[in-house]
Amino acid sequence: MNFQFRAKAVAALVPIFLATSLAADPLPSWNAGETKTAIIAFVDAVADPTSEDYVTPADRSAVFDNDGTLWAEQPAYFQLFFAIDQVKKMDASDLKSDALKAAAAGDIEALLATGKEGLLEVLAAAHSGMSVQEFKANVAEWLDTASHPTTGQPYTTMVYQPMLELLGYLRDKGFATYIVSGGGIDFIRVLSEDAYNIPVNQVIGSSLVSEYVEDEGTPMLMKRADLFFNDDKAGKPVAINHHIGKRPIFAGGNSDGDFQMLEWTTSGNGLSFGPYVHHTDADREWAYDRDGHIGVLNRGLDEARERGWYFADMAKDWSVIWPQE
Amino acid sequence: MNFQFRAKAVAALVPIFLATSLAADPLPSWNAGETKTAIIAFVDAVADPTSEDYVTPADRSAVFDNDGTLWAEQPAYFQLFFAIDQVKKMDASDLKSDALKAAAAGDIEALLATGKEGLLEVLAAAHSGMSVQEFKANVAEWLDTASHPTTGQPYTTMVYQPMLELLGYLRDKGFATYIVSGGGIDFIRVLSEDAYNIPVNQVIGSSLVSEYVEDEGTPMLMKRADLFFNDDKAGKPVAINHHIGKRPIFAGGNSDGDFQMLEWTTSGNGLSFGPYVHHTDADREWAYDRDGHIGVLNRGLDEARERGWYFADMAKDWSVIWPQE
Repeated sequence: MNFQFRAKAVAALVPIFLATSLAADPLPSWNAGETKTAIIAFVDAVADPTSEDYVTPADRSAVFDNDGTLWAEQPAYFQLFFAIDQVKKMDASDLKSDALKAAAAGDIEALLATGKEGLLEVLAAAHSGMSVQEFKANVAEWLDTASHPTTGQPYTTMVYQPMLELLGYLRDKGFATYIVSGGGIDFIRVLSEDAYNIPVNQVIGSSLVSEYVEDEGTPMLMKRADLFFNDDKAGKPVAINHHIGKRPIFAGGNSDGDFQMLEWTTSGNGLSFGPYVHHTDADREWAYDRDGHIGVLNRGLDEARERGWYFADMAKDWSVIWPQE
Repeated sequence: MNFQFRAKAVAALVPIFLATSLAADPLPSWNAGETKTAIIAFVDAVADPTSEDYVTPADRSAVFDNDGTLWAEQPAYFQLFFAIDQVKKMDASDLKSDALKAAAAGDIEALLATGKEGLLEVLAAAHSGMSVQEFKANVAEWLDTASHPTTGQPYTTMVYQPMLELLGYLRDKGFATYIVSGGGIDFIRVLSEDAYNIPVNQVIGSSLVSEYVEDEGTPMLMKRADLFFNDDKAGKPVAINHHIGKRPIFAGGNSDGDFQMLEWTTSGNGLSFGPYVHHTDADREWAYDRDGHIGVLNRGLDEARERGWYFADMAKDWSVIWPQE
């Protein structure tokens, strides 16, 4: 082999080496930095059978908030847009309140002016008085046809590419990945498999009472307007225990509604990890934390560091935000 | 090869053939008969990709009642014996009612005479006012030390060998196996992995309200005395939807408390299977159905045949009942 040939051979290997090197990065949309390094170090430690921090696969549960953690939540929770769009389809004669009328007219300001009671009325109209099956069909149709008011994109494209990579990375390393959302369990289950590769039995959320009834011999589950469980704040650890039956070792959130979930997860005996997605990128997404009504992060910002939690700073840590970039 | 050699060779093969043949029987403790044949035909049909009744693995969920279906439930639900044994450990000064006094004295007749309210008081004393972790430790200790009043055996040995084989057979064929019990979710989770090879996140049951609290900086989940969910009768399909998020295709039960679970499971579009364990063997187990207070089976006995459900008749269908036989 002469030198020229060898040089050529090495040159030919360069793109292969680069490809291998890129393929070996489990989180390509995460910029190098403290958080990415810490995530990989944590996963390596719990998944390596020779590590003193090794965790058996059955105990590798990772829980994630949905709104603002796996997909966007501005200018309002997407499920509220779904509810408003459902009210728009109601018969005019059924619009018996100011809240329903405002929603049907698409007048968000007028709807918000009706207060919490008005919002709950709109949510109830879209989420109850039908079977679970019918509700899910409504959600599926809406996801297929609706578009986000700011971006004009389908809602399911507004998921965070770095979080998709994180979910896949954890699953590759033997984790079971769960959604633990303040949003509706039946709503999220319509999209969880396609959007996140998370099976419906690993979706935990808020729910209304459902009732088993027979309609002319056909049994069905009817959604009622009463709240069954509010999967937010201190409700999240309760729901995790109820559905999973053990304490997770990884919890990702973005707001104070996730505080207790991160606290519970990181209070176990072994190694654990609690990252907060921090919305710092007004150019590519939205920038918000302490103020407003959606995804408020106060206590989390104050206490994360002392508790050993990490931030995924969108502007700093994410080279890409959306899958279609 | 001469004839003698061939005969020897064939003779040598006989035990191998028998062993293979036995190993090939997925349900060795089930006697040949209509029910065993139907179970295997059902499983073959839904697991064979070339079958017109094929069901994708993600949709192969099987749900099982626990008391009287996977383990015994006579002369009373085992969880009641646990509760009584816990009350026996209480300080005498805390025994402030006739029900608690009767339980502490082990006087079951006197306890039953206090009625439903007395029983609930005993259950509440054993199941609330402590953390989930502490409760589970109590259950684990009890399972390790207590013995059944009639058989003198540890409770976890009183599981049904044919049902263990059925659970394993279904899992081998790609099913996810779930417990859906009227008994307590936290109670069953202590034994589900060892007794049935069912992970805790596939255990569904009744539950009390639990509350996330901090005790001097340590977060914990405290069990309260209020009922959160009664996983019985029409509650079972509701809980299945809540935890699994889809309709199972196999449901096993033994009482009218399981009727709606079997009805829901067998009302789907594709092939499904609903067996009832029928307690017909007073010699080896107990014989009961229409009468009494435990595991009452009336509507199920009346309607099973017309609904296409099968019976596992203990005396007729099970050659072995207990694993230690």
